[in-house]
Amino acid sequence: METLYSKTTEKDIAKYVLFSGDPWRVETVAKQLEDVKHIAFAREFNTYTGFYKGVRITVTSTGIGAPSAAIAMEEMYQCGMEVAVRMGTTMGLKDDMLGKLLISTGAMREEATSKTYVPESYPAVADIELINCMNKSTLKNGRQYINGITCSMDGFYSQMRDSRLSEEMNRDIGETFARLKKYNILAVDMESSCMLTLANLMGIKACIVTMTTVLENLKDFLKGEARTQSEIDLCKIALDGIAIYDKGVADI
Amino acid sequence: METLYSKTTEKDIAKYVLFSGDPWRVETVAKQLEDVKHIAFAREFNTYTGFYKGVRITVTSTGIGAPSAAIAMEEMYQCGMEVAVRMGTTMGLKDDMLGKLLISTGAMREEATSKTYVPESYPAVADIELINCMNKSTLKNGRQYINGITCSMDGFYSQMRDSRLSEEMNRDIGETFARLKKYNILAVDMESSCMLTLANLMGIKACIVTMTTVLENLKDFLKGEARTQSEIDLCKIALDGIAIYDKGVADI
Amino acid sequence: METLYSKTTEKDIAKYVLFSGDPWRVETVAKQLEDVKHIAFAREFNTYTGFYKGVRITVTSTGIGAPSAAIAMEEMYQCGMEVAVRMGTTMGLKDDMLGKLLISTGAMREEATSKTYVPESYPAVADIELINCMNKSTLKNGRQYINGITCSMDGFYSQMRDSRLSEEMNRDIGETFARLKKYNILAVDMESSCMLTLANLMGIKACIVTMTTVLENLKDFLKGEARTQSEIDLCKIALDGIAIYDKGVADI
Amino acid sequence: METLYSKTTEKDIAKYVLFSGDPWRVETVAKQLEDVKHIAFAREFNTYTGFYKGVRITVTSTGIGAPSAAIAMEEMYQCGMEVAVRMGTTMGLKDDMLGKLLISTGAMREEATSKTYVPESYPAVADIELINCMNKSTLKNGRQYINGITCSMDGFYSQMRDSRLSEEMNRDIGETFARLKKYNILAVDMESSCMLTLANLMGIKACIVTMTTVLENLKDFLKGEARTQSEIDLCKIALDGIAIYDKGVADI
Amino acid sequence: METLYSKTTEKDIAKYVLFSGDPWRVETVAKQLEDVKHIAFAREFNTYTGFYKGVRITVTSTGIGAPSAAIAMEEMYQCGMEVAVRMGTTMGLKDDMLGKLLISTGAMREEATSKTYVPESYPAVADIELINCMNKSTLKNGRQYINGITCSMDGFYSQMRDSRLSEEMNRDIGETFARLKKYNILAVDMESSCMLTLANLMGIKACIVTMTTVLENLKDFLKGEARTQSEIDLCKIALDGIAIYDKGVADI
Amino acid sequence: METLYSKTTEKDIAKYVLFSGDPWRVETVAKQLEDVKHIAFAREFNTYTGFYKGVRITVTSTGIGAPSAAIAMEEMYQCGMEVAVRMGTTMGLKDDMLGKLLISTGAMREEATSKTYVPESYPAVADIELINCMNKSTLKNGRQYINGITCSMDGFYSQMRDSRLSEEMNRDIGETFARLKKYNILAVDMESSCMLTLANLMGIKACIVTMTTVLENLKDFLKGEARTQSEIDLCKIALDGIAIYDKGVADI
Repeated sequence: METLYSKTTEKDIAKYVLFSGDPWRVETVAKQLEDVKHIAFAREFNTYTGFYKGVRITVTSTGIGAPSAAIAMEEMYQCGMEVAVRMGTTMGLKDDMLGKLLISTGAMREEATSKTYVPESYPAVADIELINCMNKSTLKNGRQYINGITCSMDGFYSQMRDSRLSEEMNRDIGETFARLKKYNILAVDMESSCMLTLANLMGIKACIVTMTTVLENLKDFLKGEARTQSEIDLCKIALDGIAIYDKGVADI
Repeated sequence: METLYSKTTEKDIAKYVLFSGDPWRVETVAKQLEDVKHIAFAREFNTYTGFYKGVRITVTSTGIGAPSAAIAMEEMYQCGMEVAVRMGTTMGLKDDMLGKLLISTGAMREEATSKTYVPESYPAVADIELINCMNKSTLKNGRQYINGITCSMDGFYSQMRDSRLSEEMNRDIGETFARLKKYNILAVDMESSCMLTLANLMGIKACIVTMTTVLENLKDFLKGEARTQSEIDLCKIALDGIAIYDKGVADI
Repeated sequence: METLYSKTTEKDIAKYVLFSGDPWRVETVAKQLEDVKHIAFAREFNTYTGFYKGVRITVTSTGIGAPSAAIAMEEMYQCGMEVAVRMGTTMGLKDDMLGKLLISTGAMREEATSKTYVPESYPAVADIELINCMNKSTLKNGRQYINGITCSMDGFYSQMRDSRLSEEMNRDIGETFARLKKYNILAVDMESSCMLTLANLMGIKACIVTMTTVLENLKDFLKGEARTQSEIDLCKIALDGIAIYDKGVADI
Repeated sequence: METLYSKTTEKDIAKYVLFSGDPWRVETVAKQLEDVKHIAFAREFNTYTGFYKGVRITVTSTGIGAPSAAIAMEEMYQCGMEVAVRMGTTMGLKDDMLGKLLISTGAMREEATSKTYVPESYPAVADIELINCMNKSTLKNGRQYINGITCSMDGFYSQMRDSRLSEEMNRDIGETFARLKKYNILAVDMESSCMLTLANLMGIKACIVTMTTVLENLKDFLKGEARTQSEIDLCKIALDGIAIYDKGVADI
Repeated sequence: METLYSKTTEKDIAKYVLFSGDPWRVETVAKQLEDVKHIAFAREFNTYTGFYKGVRITVTSTGIGAPSAAIAMEEMYQCGMEVAVRMGTTMGLKDDMLGKLLISTGAMREEATSKTYVPESYPAVADIELINCMNKSTLKNGRQYINGITCSMDGFYSQMRDSRLSEEMNRDIGETFARLKKYNILAVDMESSCMLTLANLMGIKACIVTMTTVLENLKDFLKGEARTQSEIDLCKIALDGIAIYDKGVADI
Repeated sequence: METLYSKTTEKDIAKYVLFSGDPWRVETVAKQLEDVKHIAFAREFNTYTGFYKGVRITVTSTGIGAPSAAIAMEEMYQCGMEVAVRMGTTMGLKDDMLGKLLISTGAMREEATSKTYVPESYPAVADIELINCMNKSTLKNGRQYINGITCSMDGFYSQMRDSRLSEEMNRDIGETFARLKKYNILAVDMESSCMLTLANLMGIKACIVTMTTVLENLKDFLKGEARTQSEIDLCKIALDGIAIYDKGVADI
């Protein structure tokens, strides 16, 4: 039966699913796949299935925010997903992160969608085998990785970035980052903690692979060629990590 | 300055903004406009600006969920929006709603994004002048309207519809609707309460116009011609309502 | 059967009920009615029923605070109330409000009694038809109205006004108003949000009509003749609004 | 300076204040006093000051609910109150309580007004010296006492008694009592926990003296002569308890 | 049947149980008993039963924190405990407390273990008869007592005392005490509110007897001989208080 | 400077610290060390430092519950701890766990002590390098491991096991386990989530190594020789895991 929003069916979807937040970036990833087939672009969910180094992989999008990310996870799970990998670019909260991969061990659940599934006390942890594979893939692709904690939030312009309204209300957005750094949080997004939580409830494996392209307060950021190359590498690291996991060579 | 996600600028955006949840439905609405210009389709935000009965109107999308709806509201506000109208189709929780317009007076804030702006106790109320105009527009277009309360939630497959996971966890999704009906809630969605809350904080006018196309538990639903016509009418009612408001003839 | 606290029975009570906070002000309102009958003055509930422009109306009191206001609403509902109108004087939080009527579209639920009925996320919205009638009545009586949001709280001397104890505990009462003004709240009281919430649960119509007699920090206030006239007008506007509603001439 | 609501001044008020919920019962108590003076009857606050066995005592009312009880406490404290005694009749949750005095050691804070002063974790405890005096007064007046815990709530018809609305919403009011009895709660009211909490914050002494006139589910209740006598005794026990305390003969 | 953690049985345990936080202090108390028998020292629970002035008394330990204190209370209750007395030394938050006994009337429930039993609104009150006996015992032993409110918390180094981590996180521990003093709290510990709450639920009698050996910020503290004597007196006061209670001579 | 409760100093404590809940089990572990020195046994904290395969290791105890576990973590951190390993036996919630090692990837924060440090949304995750080392150590010692999620709670007899009080209150303790199994929780204890949370805030490495010696509802349990051997193996696996980590041979 076709899923309600993403318009996919069980036969369309591979057991490995790679998620992007942006539906348009899915196009770029799809170009890395062989024998690729466009499944659907419905709502904010753009879905392709193809092969990478012989492994059948689906790439799709979550849109912005945990509510639509939960729908994407649920509908892929409905279609048989066994491994979920979220990839993206991120702003790093520590100075030495630029150009490095953040492969999260867990995420702070400051979004609320996951709380409609399980109490806030439940840890949004990534799968250790997947983390090991992604760490290994990063090194093989000539990059460095950091394992640490991400924070996911619901309010972009109320918690993470100034806006016309935040200024009118005199909100201090910087306070968010000051607080998170005291907790050793390395990066902020809007979907990761929900996706990890759902994966644990589903009993499937999940991890988060992000490239740090900018530091807090724009202290430094990747640009031009370095930026382009970092996105290419991110995509390759995520796909290679899945391939490593599939071959089972990541055992310690 | 171009907005971060929707890639719009102040000169692109009209003071009246019509929001659809689905970026692809924006295409349909845009066809009703004259002198229409495509502004951008970035992430899940698809934006056109044109004219309807001489009134300049922008139509854009929010994507699914309050986090992206808040971003859409914030970025349109950044570009000068003064009136926000959300349109959509909905499932009615009372039996006599099929084919009627639900023009909400307020919304239950069961989504969490608006709580990152203001405590949960704050009422998500629609603007009374806009409601009056939309009520009048509905009658002029030969439809009936209901004014009542909508509920907005974050968890589609945890609160509003069964899924593979909800069944594995033995969640009783039906309990949500039973509870909401006791509160005289007429419909459920994922964005309205956040959009109304933000509009009140911004000091702008907003309302929610939805067409009831299905009743709870699929007791009854519009199909074929009736369904097609209902979507055409919904679009016309929303646009006419804005035109009535603009002409200021809606005063009681 | 006689109600427990207010000592009223179904035959005593009209379908239109006008509520005052102060039991002694009920005496003044009762003087505006014809064929008026004193029902009871039990606890803080002082109740009369009579006629205004041919419409049968009950006037009663709630006492201070949401717990007794909820009892008043429940006991009037027990006796067949269909329309509830709360009237009172208020302190306005915006500078241009003095002498104007605030006819609230909704109220922030900072009192807790309504939360014993329904979660805090539920919006305390007024009935749109009643608002339209009260707006019209205001203009007919030569006054101006504002439609906006009121906030209702439980702690008068902990949240709204300094006291010997608040000073001993170094509480900053001014912080309450600073915060509420950021949310575009126009006035503060102790009962409105509870009464609107209960009306929505009961499926009856309700609204709040208040005269702004003082501005925050005593910047300005009505005095002498202006004050007396404002209370007379308030009473007349509320009663006329009910009469307009009863005649059904308020349709847009 | 005159207090805002109860219209009292420092010279009007004794250091001992006896509170009734019902403003009209104050009349009965006042008859027990000598050289009594009526101070004011404003809003639901009816106030007399006189002498009992040579001790100067004020008797006043709180109205129903913690918000107005807090105002009464604050305004009496403004006028110099040092000892606060709340008296009333109550429904007992244990079978052997009929006709006995419940002199509470503490109260469960299920009302919200006290939470606007101090977190819920703070114990609403009575003063031990006052309890000792009231216990002694009870025995001297030929009655028996019980020391235990009362519960105070905000929602009378949502938590403590069925109503037309509670039935329409299918609320199970009996569940409240079943739960409270598991916690060894002996009686339920709407003001005690707020008054005890405020007294502790003010650094003054307070206690609650209630006569059990009815058992849960109307299993049994005082009637006729027994009921009349019980109210006379209640009044005498409270006044005698204050006199004992004043003479300082209650030391253990 | 032997209890799981403390390894005690019903026949080992007296109806009077005296609790120390520190398992090693139990050794000192046991020396005051006659015909004393060592029951067990398992986990942090060190238990002796003996006689004091002819009254059979068990002395045992709770370890640090409410979770293990709850286990101690539960296992002693399993073995037939009817009266629970917690003794200890404490830091006083008011200046005139040094060398005085604080015999608490209640405790602020800032620990969370008791909340797994009953909502936070429930008051942690001590038994009035036991308090009267301990007050009397204090005076007989030539010391002064204070009756007031204690606060119990879970986080020693996050709420009550600076640490390497609190400094790295820039936590202001002093804020805790400033806040508690505004609430007229006299002392802080980690177990009292949980033990009082459980005793009320069990329907048994309990109280807290503490010697103030140090003032906040080390303004002053008992040292040398005075300190030694204070601990001897604390032990004697608690044991004598139990003996007074047992003889029933404490009636007012 | 000596720590307040555990009476240790910086020179006494190794950078690797192995924690047992039970202070008496520390004696057993200490026997596995060479050149071992007893540091102190104060309160429930029993501490030894010695060498295992040439690596300097401290073994100490936490007592029962998160409040004392937090104190143990804080005081060891004060003394320079860099790696924290908690070891213990546990009841497994899945049938195939008996005799296997549960090496947790994270823990559900149902205890409250960690919430005095950081909001509940923060994930209690273990260090991935330590997990890898403990997994490897398990296999080398001829056992099998499971990586999954543990839950830590404050109320042993209110949440995890029936008692005289739970039966009197009609609490359904079994409901806890039914709920946790739906969340794929593998085991329950009282300290792990607090220790992992603090380690992440401290910026040090931590993990939890537990031997499953009993299944839920006593379906099956290790006994006699199997039980003895399992505890010996647990101890060896934890110590070998530290040695593997120290040698840095655990890199993937």
